[in-house]
Amino acid sequence: MAKNSAALESWRVGRKLKLKDLDPGARPFAGSSREADDARLDELAIEIDRLQDLLYANGSAGAPPKLLLVLQGMDTSGKDGTARSVFSRCSPLGVRVAAFKAPTEVERAHDFLWRVHAVVPRSGEIVVFNRSHYEDVLVPFVERWIDAAERDRRLGHINAFERLLHDGGTRVLKCFLHISKAEQKERLQARVDDPAKRWKFNLGDLATRAKWKQYVAAYETALAATSTAHAPWYVIPADSKTNRNLMIARLVAEVLKGMKLKAPKPDFDPAAVKIV
Amino acid sequence: MAKNSAALESWRVGRKLKLKDLDPGARPFAGSSREADDARLDELAIEIDRLQDLLYANGSAGAPPKLLLVLQGMDTSGKDGTARSVFSRCSPLGVRVAAFKAPTEVERAHDFLWRVHAVVPRSGEIVVFNRSHYEDVLVPFVERWIDAAERDRRLGHINAFERLLHDGGTRVLKCFLHISKAEQKERLQARVDDPAKRWKFNLGDLATRAKWKQYVAAYETALAATSTAHAPWYVIPADSKTNRNLMIARLVAEVLKGMKLKAPKPDFDPAAVKIV
Repeated sequence: MAKNSAALESWRVGRKLKLKDLDPGARPFAGSSREADDARLDELAIEIDRLQDLLYANGSAGAPPKLLLVLQGMDTSGKDGTARSVFSRCSPLGVRVAAFKAPTEVERAHDFLWRVHAVVPRSGEIVVFNRSHYEDVLVPFVERWIDAAERDRRLGHINAFERLLHDGGTRVLKCFLHISKAEQKERLQARVDDPAKRWKFNLGDLATRAKWKQYVAAYETALAATSTAHAPWYVIPADSKTNRNLMIARLVAEVLKGMKLKAPKPDFDPAAVKIV
Repeated sequence: MAKNSAALESWRVGRKLKLKDLDPGARPFAGSSREADDARLDELAIEIDRLQDLLYANGSAGAPPKLLLVLQGMDTSGKDGTARSVFSRCSPLGVRVAAFKAPTEVERAHDFLWRVHAVVPRSGEIVVFNRSHYEDVLVPFVERWIDAAERDRRLGHINAFERLLHDGGTRVLKCFLHISKAEQKERLQARVDDPAKRWKFNLGDLATRAKWKQYVAAYETALAATSTAHAPWYVIPADSKTNRNLMIARLVAEVLKGMKLKAPKPDFDPAAVKIV
């Protein structure tokens, strides 16, 4: 089981990306025992909660930190499950999930980043994007509503936007949940078969699945063009939920630890205050 | 009195700007008779209303147009008066003014463009910014809360942001209301003397006035760095309110006319519909 940061960094997206060279079934961060993995994940979730508490406490400080975690991936790749698992020990007070569906009429009446900018983290907050502005360079391009020139313009806008967030004190961390087409088949079938999960399925998912190759190509272009020093992408082998959760929890914990947060200094003398 | 577009273009800001070479008392767009000027301004306001109606009607069309008018200038330069005058004939349904004051706690908890992006025009809308994101490269720089490097980073973010709006179908038009220090003295004194205007005055205005030269220099840098093809700045000689209003009304009317708006085609056959 990989333990050090270098192992995480080897999954960071560089200037070129070929997803077929990366095994969705890999489990570099999972061990041989389910129990040990679960225990490790809970340890990480507790550590993330401690760090998130510190982040929140620093929300009103001079250069207040924020964290944006972007989750992208094909249908059933586990975006919702990741958010549940990684932040299972955190209070919702400081962690917020923003999910992006097909844009509404009001959203379409603005530039594509308008609805996204509105919900970015404020100081002291962690925000998880379940889907994101990256949908706007994937779906419309694969569906041919926009051409490559417009796609590239949008990629440029995305880089500028994420640089703005970064310069404003936001750490931007982006994870691509990488599953195989075979794994998706099983998960979609489970959604169809299980009455409790059926609401998650709609027939449009099959049309998207039929364009698997085009989506893989669109992801490769988008991720390689936007994996920057200030907002890197990581490919997360996600056929194994355990590996996916452990890997993203590790990434989040490392970014939070890297902020070197300390409890803010009180603006009073604790020794001089007696509660009566 | 200047009438053609070339005359307007001569006030467009290029790569360098020296405000002292531009006379705030100039009246290139005002005539010799007050009555004729008033009549001309009302004609323009009526034309702007007609064009704004068309813009609104096209709000749901395929590539829906929008207009953002940014007004900046020293205290008393007439930002509010301009908005009243130029859009005097328009319905508030399609024209909205967004005024920016010192940022609130929630606004400060985000990047400086967050509160600005939230209120940009939607399709079919005209929005007037009374002050704007440019305050964030003026006040903090003059007050030395940020250095030149941070100011320059922000200018880069502003250019990228305005390019995003432009690519999303928004025409961005920016006017610097150029008044002299002597004219400001009279207008501030009038605010102090007139009980009905007194609420507009606060002592902080005097501290800002005392830094006139620094603000002029900060404006020169900011305007020259952000007067782009997609979002040009115009210097508006504004000691004369008549000149200021006529010039900005002319600019707005020309931009709207340039959109070549037509009434949207009905999605029904008018001949086939009989209201009974």
